[in-house]
Amino acid sequence: MDIDADTLRTIWLAEDGGGVDIIDQTRLPFEYSVVRLETMLEAAHAIADMLVRGAPLIGATAAYGIALAMREDTSDAHLDSAYRALLDARPTAVNLRWALDDMRALLRPLPTTKRLAAAYVRAREICEEDIAICSAIGDHGLEIIEAIWEKKDRQGPVNILTHCNAGWLATVKWGTATAPIYKAHQAGIPVHVWVDETRPRNQGAGLTAWELGRHNVPHTLIVDNAGGHVMQHGMVDLCIVGTDRTTRSGDVCNKIGTYLKALAARDNEVPFYVALPSPTIDWTISDGVRDIPIERRDSAEVTHVIGRDPQGAVVQVRITPDATDGANYAFDVTPAHLVSGLITEKGVSEASAQGLQALFPGRGGSLEAS
Amino acid sequence: MDIDADTLRTIWLAEDGGGVDIIDQTRLPFEYSVVRLETMLEAAHAIADMLVRGAPLIGATAAYGIALAMREDTSDAHLDSAYRALLDARPTAVNLRWALDDMRALLRPLPTTKRLAAAYVRAREICEEDIAICSAIGDHGLEIIEAIWEKKDRQGPVNILTHCNAGWLATVKWGTATAPIYKAHQAGIPVHVWVDETRPRNQGAGLTAWELGRHNVPHTLIVDNAGGHVMQHGMVDLCIVGTDRTTRSGDVCNKIGTYLKALAARDNEVPFYVALPSPTIDWTISDGVRDIPIERRDSAEVTHVIGRDPQGAVVQVRITPDATDGANYAFDVTPAHLVSGLITEKGVSEASAQGLQALFPGRGGSLEAS
Repeated sequence: MDIDADTLRTIWLAEDGGGVDIIDQTRLPFEYSVVRLETMLEAAHAIADMLVRGAPLIGATAAYGIALAMREDTSDAHLDSAYRALLDARPTAVNLRWALDDMRALLRPLPTTKRLAAAYVRAREICEEDIAICSAIGDHGLEIIEAIWEKKDRQGPVNILTHCNAGWLATVKWGTATAPIYKAHQAGIPVHVWVDETRPRNQGAGLTAWELGRHNVPHTLIVDNAGGHVMQHGMVDLCIVGTDRTTRSGDVCNKIGTYLKALAARDNEVPFYVALPSPTIDWTISDGVRDIPIERRDSAEVTHVIGRDPQGAVVQVRITPDATDGANYAFDVTPAHLVSGLITEKGVSEASAQGLQALFPGRGGSLEAS
Repeated sequence: MDIDADTLRTIWLAEDGGGVDIIDQTRLPFEYSVVRLETMLEAAHAIADMLVRGAPLIGATAAYGIALAMREDTSDAHLDSAYRALLDARPTAVNLRWALDDMRALLRPLPTTKRLAAAYVRAREICEEDIAICSAIGDHGLEIIEAIWEKKDRQGPVNILTHCNAGWLATVKWGTATAPIYKAHQAGIPVHVWVDETRPRNQGAGLTAWELGRHNVPHTLIVDNAGGHVMQHGMVDLCIVGTDRTTRSGDVCNKIGTYLKALAARDNEVPFYVALPSPTIDWTISDGVRDIPIERRDSAEVTHVIGRDPQGAVVQVRITPDATDGANYAFDVTPAHLVSGLITEKGVSEASAQGLQALFPGRGGSLEAS
């Protein structure tokens, strides 16, 4: 396996040619552990137990899960039962269902003797398609970073603030928000990343800090409270975040706290970009604040924090009085007018219905009816 | 001691008439423990080891520390050595020096036989002066809450968001930002408080949640990231925060993250008030962002979190990879134009040079020179 694949990929064909290697992300940032999936059920467990996370990576793992199932038995019955087992692993994940539908639709019409090879080929294609999208996002975002670097007369690093983890750990390779950062780093542009901790689940402190460290990208962790201060004092040249869902008008639903950073960016004239694969655009919704329901998760994520104690054990500690309850809103919506631009695989769009329509003609057709 | 004093005070004369009781705040929120200070050195340790915190409470403890010293020996030599020992306990605390200067200036001219009683009387006065200031802040802030309650046609609770701990735990009684909340609660106005966690030191999750719970004030903990979302969705009627330092033009230096909440309040037309005793106004400074240096604290506060593990032990856990470094900016500055008003002991002022001058005539005299 090539070095690049080892260090920027989250899933790859094992050296034995049949198993699939993944990173056990539940152990990050405290331990880097590669797990080999040998069976369909192991793939299902990896999805259910969140060894893999992030929509693209879940889809890719499910696709390989079907391939592993074909190693066991290429019958219709086993294909169908593998489909169900993998789908049940995380029933609400849209990418999971998409990848499974794609795999089954391809394999079902084939004679059973052709299914094994076809499954591996298609699973690899699904991975490569995701890599191509993220790489294109990286190339378009790189141009933005390059322009800032030139504007700074190539003095000092380009300081980029990001929130949560929209990194390669959530995709097959490159990530979304991190793709422009890795491309710039590889191109020799000095970058420094302000990593938001991202309470309550600390994906910034745990995952983004870990993956940037693994690639020697200079970075500094800050608490979520600090972003306004560093922008106020000229220490941020650019914000780039990911998104879970973007409306056709350019409103961005992303990890809780993104909106606060967008407000600070606007107040301090710092460009605020959102990186996204176009499949995450929801063309049926216009007003994100009004129409996107926000998931409320377990309040224990707010009242507790997971970390490693001085003895090296990973423990969950309570930070509040026993009686205190927490409200755990998982996402917020950043209105389009606070977003400088959307970095997609097709190029950079203004965060507006007009901008998205121009980049994706034919998709925003129902706009007039809204 | 009366119930009210027990439940809203942080320091009081012990039932033996000589010792001084304080709450050991280092054990909060996990344990409520009252510690009796019997000697001047115990008072100095309580300050140095942060059993007491918050500028007014530190000053009050130091004043009682001098009184305890007079129990031991009323000589000039002992008065001077007590002054030095208490000042060394936290050399940078402005209120500490002020209280010690006040006590020494009072006692030194007195015959040694009069010093003991005079010290206790003056220490009590210093406490009562702080209580009077905080109570007046509460009364003025109560009017704001009452007006919102009327505007809501007395339907549902008044939802108040606060950041960090500007509570009675930081003062002798009432607190600053919390004083209007307690006054409203006692007046029978239903209030509900959104408590910001306040990373990195979690004063919201630990102290504000604890003291509101002790007074049965309904409250919900949220991560610092969530404030924008709850304001966007009409779940906040009012923000009240404290301040460490306010410029003569109304810029507010407070715990890191305050600025982000002020931006969200402005974006959603939520009133944003700052409660402050007038001695914290710095009449020498106008531009807070430019002229207030921001303390950078130990990065371990960012990379680690303190909490109680499942076995009940209070431990510090690391939330990042070992190699990750953090930047720990302790405060930020909220520009005056984002502040709806300053709630002082003299009344509510517009956050502007004009507003403060009107409330404190003769103090902003050097304004024209700025």
